[in-house]
Amino acid sequence: MAHLSILGTGNMGQAIAAVAGNGGHTVQLLGENDTATQISGDVVVLAVPYPAVSDVIAQRGESLAGKIVVDITNPLNFETFDSLVVAADSSAAAEIAAALPQSRVLKAFNTTFAGTLAAGTVGPLTTTVLIAGDDADAKSALAGILTSGGLNAIDAGALKRARELEALGFLQLTLAANEKVSWTGGFGVIA
Amino acid sequence: MAHLSILGTGNMGQAIAAVAGNGGHTVQLLGENDTATQISGDVVVLAVPYPAVSDVIAQRGESLAGKIVVDITNPLNFETFDSLVVAADSSAAAEIAAALPQSRVLKAFNTTFAGTLAAGTVGPLTTTVLIAGDDADAKSALAGILTSGGLNAIDAGALKRARELEALGFLQLTLAANEKVSWTGGFGVIA
Repeated sequence: MAHLSILGTGNMGQAIAAVAGNGGHTVQLLGENDTATQISGDVVVLAVPYPAVSDVIAQRGESLAGKIVVDITNPLNFETFDSLVVAADSSAAAEIAAALPQSRVLKAFNTTFAGTLAAGTVGPLTTTVLIAGDDADAKSALAGILTSGGLNAIDAGALKRARELEALGFLQLTLAANEKVSWTGGFGVIA
Repeated sequence: MAHLSILGTGNMGQAIAAVAGNGGHTVQLLGENDTATQISGDVVVLAVPYPAVSDVIAQRGESLAGKIVVDITNPLNFETFDSLVVAADSSAAAEIAAALPQSRVLKAFNTTFAGTLAAGTVGPLTTTVLIAGDDADAKSALAGILTSGGLNAIDAGALKRARELEALGFLQLTLAANEKVSWTGGFGVIA
């Protein structure tokens, strides 16, 4: 059984907490007013919007040393919906990994809308979470939590692949914003 | 009824030809030994690997003026399977559009494996072709060909979105190469 800390009580944080709970894991769910509360989880999900990540790292970076830290962000320019705000040859996950050199940083959840995590399905398919990262044990630990909670998980490669995952998340958001797919649909994975 | 020219007789060219044929459209399928044959289609699909595109443009660029030109490439570094060979802030489609300023260039088919085009399905889903481009009429024409042939088609936005489509195609190829998905699977779209 794993113990997770989820920072962020929005739709994504709540959906990820429910998946972990379904799998029999324990969750500490921390909101923005809980800054005085120590993080107790070995797996920490940064379920906050990209612009809030730097503050979280400034406040809690030291306490994240040694932990698995999961970046779920889609670093879009939400004013234009036409570009990412990270460098074209980088990713939010790469930035976070650079800022947290003592943590094992994973990219996950940014390609699955909250509704598909909460339902466990996307259309006729079981929801699949794509996980990128440089630490195989950390990826395996997160995948185990997700599969015990009823989802599928796929190792999408090294943390470098976060760039492609963020492009996929960006594309999916533009499709939903333009009503080409619904917020309970999007990309599913057929193994 | 549309008339297509498909340059390239590999799995992708054959599968795209079959979809068009299913929709009642006519197809001129040209192989690498047909360089003397004039292109007769109003919609021209460059169903060749990315490294062969520049030669096709050098040989046939003038005859592509005024036509809809469809780029299907995934410009991977196939030696490393770890990066694209186009600039991080660009795309193969953007390069092709710059080289063919008198053509209406679309990006399509790079996110659908040949097997899913040939079958018309990916798992339990109808295969969906994502189309990016700056000319709405051209996108609509291609979408009409595909839906008449039994597939789904989604307008994925401006040609600038080819960058994200190429990231998605790249990611999907790495998943298949690493046996995380099969060559008849991959990403499906749930509207």
